[in-house]
Amino acid sequence: MLSTTERTRVRRGKNRARTDRDDLYDVLDAGMICHLGVVVDGAPRVVPTAYARVGDTLYLHGSTGARSLRAEGEVCVTVTLLDGIVLARSAMHHSVNYRSAMVYGTPRPVTDPDEHMAALEAVTEQLAPGQWDVVRRPNRKEIAATAVLALGLDEASVKIRDAPPVDDEEDYALPVWAGVLPVRTVFGTPEPDPRLDPPRPVPAHIHGRSTRSSAR
Amino acid sequence: MLSTTERTRVRRGKNRARTDRDDLYDVLDAGMICHLGVVVDGAPRVVPTAYARVGDTLYLHGSTGARSLRAEGEVCVTVTLLDGIVLARSAMHHSVNYRSAMVYGTPRPVTDPDEHMAALEAVTEQLAPGQWDVVRRPNRKEIAATAVLALGLDEASVKIRDAPPVDDEEDYALPVWAGVLPVRTVFGTPEPDPRLDPPRPVPAHIHGRSTRSSAR
Repeated sequence: MLSTTERTRVRRGKNRARTDRDDLYDVLDAGMICHLGVVVDGAPRVVPTAYARVGDTLYLHGSTGARSLRAEGEVCVTVTLLDGIVLARSAMHHSVNYRSAMVYGTPRPVTDPDEHMAALEAVTEQLAPGQWDVVRRPNRKEIAATAVLALGLDEASVKIRDAPPVDDEEDYALPVWAGVLPVRTVFGTPEPDPRLDPPRPVPAHIHGRSTRSSAR
Repeated sequence: MLSTTERTRVRRGKNRARTDRDDLYDVLDAGMICHLGVVVDGAPRVVPTAYARVGDTLYLHGSTGARSLRAEGEVCVTVTLLDGIVLARSAMHHSVNYRSAMVYGTPRPVTDPDEHMAALEAVTEQLAPGQWDVVRRPNRKEIAATAVLALGLDEASVKIRDAPPVDDEEDYALPVWAGVLPVRTVFGTPEPDPRLDPPRPVPAHIHGRSTRSSAR
């Protein structure tokens, strides 16, 4: 179960709130990038970034020079998966089907070398499953240049909308098509690096993603 | 041209920064949802929301009860389009191809009725082009329940990565496939509302989206 705090209590669209921790894991595991919110000089700053979940910890990584990863204090990490455009009979009831997770907390800089390496593996695998075992792993210099933050999943909320449009009762008689236009994230045909010499076949763990949707 | 301020000056990945205003428009116009960052009680809060661009103004809308739209002060609106997974020969050079726009500013609540209606039209059309002309338009009560914020595009930055992996020179000899796995957002087959009675054909402006990528 996800515990509820003042700010994770869902006020708008309460019927969309989920309190099962597995729903949180599912959304976080299905995403490829998150939006990291920090406060810099009193103003909000929202940066797309790579991430990964390991157990009840979210790892974020970036250059040690990136301001968004050096910011102190609380962060908000939001992962949103757009699943459909909800087409209603009235303009106001247009909506989207989506899965969204928000995680609040004060991140901890990862300093333990083993945890640092495990986090880099997890972030690489979240974006590109199967790559960690075939590519050159980070060396000492690269690790030193990479900041990793760990954020516990103690304060989080999940919202999911997965439903047809909900129109005002009197609008159902309108002669307007209504329903959901599904949105999917899919992978295209892998494009070899022009500097790939000699040519190599695309490994199964890469081309295998092209044939199926990533969104579910 | 986009003017540069202290916080829109791109520090990380400078070769990815674009300064052409048309690049900003292109990214904002291609997105379907944005991530709105606000500061609530000193902490960041990042909420996915619908939006639209009209000229040099970004419109955000939501319930008048939504805390993120009632927050005062500055906001940061980020729109990110993921275009590909960059698969390098080393773990550290894994990356993503993407287009991302960040807009900073203090939004203005829209109170003029004509601007309010035009903003609702723009937000509806951003999600679902062609719907405004066929659905019931907002009535007075619905308009009163909808908060619309206007954010000028005065302070904005755009980053685009659209390239093969860049590996360390000595890694190019590694026997590892490298390249880009494209990521596309596509529309599936429209799903009629179970309450659509009698059945109606899916209008061309809806089913026409199913056959082409939305991402480019």
